[in-house]
Amino acid sequence: MAAHLRVPTRLALVVRAEVVAVGTEILLGQISNSNAQWIGERLAAIGVDVLHHQAVGDNVERIVDGLSLAASRADVVIVTGGLGPTQDDVTREALAKLAGVELERRPELERAIRDTFARAGREMPKSNLVQADVPVGARSIPAERGTAPGIVLELDGTRVYTLPGVPAEMREMMERTVLPELESLAGPATIVSRTIRCVGIAESRVAEILDDLFHGSTNPTVAYLAGGGEVRVRLTAKAASVEEAGALLAPLARVVAERIGEFVTSTSDEELDEVVGRLLRAAGKTIACAESLTGGALSARLAHAPSASDYLLGSAVCYSIEAKRQILGVSQETIEGPGVVSRESAAEMAAGARRLFGADVTLSTTGAAGPEPHDGAEPGTVWVAIQAEGVAHQRRIRAPGDRDMVVRWSEQAALDLARRHLEGLPLPDADRVVH
Amino acid sequence: MAAHLRVPTRLALVVRAEVVAVGTEILLGQISNSNAQWIGERLAAIGVDVLHHQAVGDNVERIVDGLSLAASRADVVIVTGGLGPTQDDVTREALAKLAGVELERRPELERAIRDTFARAGREMPKSNLVQADVPVGARSIPAERGTAPGIVLELDGTRVYTLPGVPAEMREMMERTVLPELESLAGPATIVSRTIRCVGIAESRVAEILDDLFHGSTNPTVAYLAGGGEVRVRLTAKAASVEEAGALLAPLARVVAERIGEFVTSTSDEELDEVVGRLLRAAGKTIACAESLTGGALSARLAHAPSASDYLLGSAVCYSIEAKRQILGVSQETIEGPGVVSRESAAEMAAGARRLFGADVTLSTTGAAGPEPHDGAEPGTVWVAIQAEGVAHQRRIRAPGDRDMVVRWSEQAALDLARRHLEGLPLPDADRVVH
Repeated sequence: MAAHLRVPTRLALVVRAEVVAVGTEILLGQISNSNAQWIGERLAAIGVDVLHHQAVGDNVERIVDGLSLAASRADVVIVTGGLGPTQDDVTREALAKLAGVELERRPELERAIRDTFARAGREMPKSNLVQADVPVGARSIPAERGTAPGIVLELDGTRVYTLPGVPAEMREMMERTVLPELESLAGPATIVSRTIRCVGIAESRVAEILDDLFHGSTNPTVAYLAGGGEVRVRLTAKAASVEEAGALLAPLARVVAERIGEFVTSTSDEELDEVVGRLLRAAGKTIACAESLTGGALSARLAHAPSASDYLLGSAVCYSIEAKRQILGVSQETIEGPGVVSRESAAEMAAGARRLFGADVTLSTTGAAGPEPHDGAEPGTVWVAIQAEGVAHQRRIRAPGDRDMVVRWSEQAALDLARRHLEGLPLPDADRVVH
Repeated sequence: MAAHLRVPTRLALVVRAEVVAVGTEILLGQISNSNAQWIGERLAAIGVDVLHHQAVGDNVERIVDGLSLAASRADVVIVTGGLGPTQDDVTREALAKLAGVELERRPELERAIRDTFARAGREMPKSNLVQADVPVGARSIPAERGTAPGIVLELDGTRVYTLPGVPAEMREMMERTVLPELESLAGPATIVSRTIRCVGIAESRVAEILDDLFHGSTNPTVAYLAGGGEVRVRLTAKAASVEEAGALLAPLARVVAERIGEFVTSTSDEELDEVVGRLLRAAGKTIACAESLTGGALSARLAHAPSASDYLLGSAVCYSIEAKRQILGVSQETIEGPGVVSRESAAEMAAGARRLFGADVTLSTTGAAGPEPHDGAEPGTVWVAIQAEGVAHQRRIRAPGDRDMVVRWSEQAALDLARRHLEGLPLPDADRVVH
């Protein structure tokens, strides 16, 4: 099949898309269908209307039925899953049946699979070669990650893209091939969202502050999403171009950011760790941590950005009392007095990390992640501290939820101290609760 | 409609279910369809076969079409979403159209809504009363959380349950009403899965080893899932009771575990960090880490279990070369010679963590997470090491994918060294690749 695009005439104005996930494990709820969400979001961003999602099991007949239905009502169908090398991967077979053709083994795909194994110094199990099978007449998309190529079929004016179910492989193929192709089909229409993130303020308070905008604005629309120790305000505009959508979003984003003020951590959907990394880089400063209940998770957040080594020196994760004393220099007085979950302990940990790493800014966390109380502190009680030239500040939060949530809220509270310090904003009161 | 259950005869043996989510925000990927996953999991647990998921937007015609299709092929349809008080909540209207009846306002539901607002001391917006509208002849499920009642329709032998889209409200209604009703329909049947996790072996190799079981066994079934530096083999049995399903699963699980041998990290779906925690606890031993590229993520994995403080002492996250030298005692010779991504560096880091924390077992990680090479090492090249009484072992892995994947594979490789050490298994060769 030719590599150039055949543009069915009915694609000219509006492209209607459908997303079909293949996998019994999705139906049984054993894994979440995160691919559908990601694909929906990306298609919306280029102005493609997604009208249906389907999920079907690893069953040839049901895949064929689902795809026939999708092809009958959509211009573009994006299928994920069932392209692996094992026996329950039957999407290739279903595609051939749908198109009424046989599967053929493509030598160039076979070579690519053999090469991938050879490069990794691994022996190739023979079963992997089924991934070189493609319905006769279909186009393939070479695999850049993994070993499963994508498959593109044309059926009576509907284009069916089939991609691997592994999220990283699917996303890479979407970005390299599918989205650019669809963008040229969809023409000038786009849906653009802008997300403003806020930390240290309740969702209901945000909703009160923005009530008139929520009700008064239809394009852009205003939506709220709370979770993970932050509130996200999402503004969504539909327009003929990205520029036009941006022009609709900018004044509203400005009003939202002004009203929420110092609680806004990002007006461009950055994670709080990215914001802190950006501020550190701009100031030419370094950071280090001293962690108890977060167990390394705070430092791992700061290490997430590609060039984190420009500012992150390290973290002393001191889970045991002995390590807190010996490595961070938490005093016997504190350990026997207010205990390791205390303002004093958080302050001494931040000071200890500063001595140990010689960083410009240090953050510390100590608290009870739960489910049991820790050293007299109730689950969810956490002290975070910051230390920097001329600054030594601590605050307590009471985080809701289970162990994971308490850790996440602690990370957010500690990172927000760093953000406020680096932005020259007031540091919140010690006893103020986050939510 | 009578409150007692009408049991369509074709429900007697197998109950086929379909889950339909209503909401444009799901199609656009603005929220994840976590309801479908949760419902799928709960239905599987009571032996109900889920054969399809659908998601449709807030559009009466498309909801009616989707529900007609679902009703034509399923015994039970579970619909979520579109029962709110706003103008884009059109599921009630679609249900009435589907059943060919009008909507009627139910006084008892209206009273319940007014009461809910009165109890909360809030004024009731008039728009909320549309939530008291139900198709003529349908049964309603009172709202215990929130204000949206559920709706139950019978259509030619298919029962359609419609529940609010808010996860907490949906789950409460499922547990209070829908699941108990379906359990009595499905009769004594349950689907039980058992997951065997493997690390250090390729998915295709696992599939080869288990090929005859995959083809030879229909109950339990065998499925594979690879990702995150491990392969999961899922055995799923359907039987009249949990005990019976367990009896079907046990011998097959034993065969699978025997064949995959030392690569099996868990036969009960435990995360590798849980396995290591359990082994440490059983041996009465402590652990500490020295981390570079994992940035605290290895230690955070070990801190995840509720009583991790029984064995985890801490971690020295040393991102900078200076911290590696000063805190962990990595030698100048190593830094200037093979560099910080080397066997020598990993060994010195593990030894340094042992001195620093006095732990029985220490793990270290150093490598290039990408996207750029690090100290001469290509992205994905990682050394992990273990040190314990009489043990000092290092190995190199080449991890695929982006920064997050390289970190995750590094965690897995390091944790697997600890598992093998604690289980008395041979430690893998230095140069063997993980996948």
